[in-house]
Amino acid sequence: MYKLVLMRHGESQWNLENRFTGWTDVDLTETGREQARQAGELLKREGYAFDLAYTSVLKRAIRTLWIALDAMDAMYTPVHNSWRLNERHYGALQGLNKAETAAQYGDEQVLIWRRAYAIAPNPLELDDPRHPRFDGRYARLTPEQLPATECLQDTVSRVLPLWNESIAPAIRAGRRVLIAAHGNSLRALIKHLDNVSEEDIVNLNIPTGQPLVYELDADLRPIKHYYLGNADEIAAAMAAVAAQGKARQG
Amino acid sequence: MYKLVLMRHGESQWNLENRFTGWTDVDLTETGREQARQAGELLKREGYAFDLAYTSVLKRAIRTLWIALDAMDAMYTPVHNSWRLNERHYGALQGLNKAETAAQYGDEQVLIWRRAYAIAPNPLELDDPRHPRFDGRYARLTPEQLPATECLQDTVSRVLPLWNESIAPAIRAGRRVLIAAHGNSLRALIKHLDNVSEEDIVNLNIPTGQPLVYELDADLRPIKHYYLGNADEIAAAMAAVAAQGKARQG
Repeated sequence: MYKLVLMRHGESQWNLENRFTGWTDVDLTETGREQARQAGELLKREGYAFDLAYTSVLKRAIRTLWIALDAMDAMYTPVHNSWRLNERHYGALQGLNKAETAAQYGDEQVLIWRRAYAIAPNPLELDDPRHPRFDGRYARLTPEQLPATECLQDTVSRVLPLWNESIAPAIRAGRRVLIAAHGNSLRALIKHLDNVSEEDIVNLNIPTGQPLVYELDADLRPIKHYYLGNADEIAAAMAAVAAQGKARQG
Repeated sequence: MYKLVLMRHGESQWNLENRFTGWTDVDLTETGREQARQAGELLKREGYAFDLAYTSVLKRAIRTLWIALDAMDAMYTPVHNSWRLNERHYGALQGLNKAETAAQYGDEQVLIWRRAYAIAPNPLELDDPRHPRFDGRYARLTPEQLPATECLQDTVSRVLPLWNESIAPAIRAGRRVLIAAHGNSLRALIKHLDNVSEEDIVNLNIPTGQPLVYELDADLRPIKHYYLGNADEIAAAMAAVAAQGKARQG
């Protein structure tokens, strides 16, 4: 039996400001850093150790991982960064406030953009300075790989090759793996692992900064999964994520 | 022409306490963190960017790298951690105060232990809890690879395979490389690059937290090298390193 641990990055500045983030490289808030610290301390207290960690090329996930590894006194853990674990690209919505967008277009349209499995927001124009082709970290990607917008289906399509070609073989080789990533790249992984339907995966809310443990059999099929930590805190964190994007937010 | 940047970690707690550190996993002081930040800001200001970074499995070097990459806004840079870049193993001297050791054994003996190319301090006993075989991060090393003490010659011998098999090929492939490491693992590299004699390499003092740029030709032979930053500060930092280990320290 194998154990795989997934962790969504802690609160970012734009989580706090309720803006669509996507591939924008926004940093953690102090609360987000504290969440990462607590996650690392929890993992250490529960006896977890890792041979290999994966994260995206976005600093909110990388910093979450670094802070957690530091709290585990395991900064020497090899880290594999991949754009394939980036958050879903939110296209032209990137930078817009979710509540304002909802007030303008209606909750329903925003919910479609946020939650329809196969409908992507309008893409960024090729000359938009937010387009990832202007960012050196993506210089080795082909034009076909480089997104200007994504629906969750697109995110699943680009996450899975990393799972199949790198993460799954590492787990099969007995390496204990930690993945620090984003709401939608983790949805993509979980859809694959648990064989979740397109209808259900869009409603799965993953709390920030809570280690999610998957126990896998020899074929990497999940036996069970559970969050580490306090059940009430986890429920509150999941409700907070579900409430994002509503126009009338507290 | 290629550029390679070397950086010795910033001040550690045991640099400050003037103790032999070796493979002991001592953290940076606040001064050390500030040195790393300044090094990163300097590299960014001078237009440096890296495709790949190497560091040891010791947190004072890893944290130096992480802080510098953060200051460069390049946390996504792939990092390769290797025990081969660890500080020279100081054997049974690890943990002892350098000035006290000098007062007890004399400056000359300490200078031999610190500076003779082929003379190692007494080894750690196999059952000494400081022995690296008790540390999980070295679990994949063979007993022959695992040191209980080292002279600089031993350090050179285990650094060079990483250079030959990984770093040099990466540079030849056009990847811009940053190495954040330790006084003696960097001496080992510089001995190889500049073909420094065994007599001279032991007297080479590398200042902490100062980016050292090597310009290399197509065969990776150095054309020239220079420290980035303020010349007076660099001279002062080199003098401070040279003064360590004298019994009467200010």
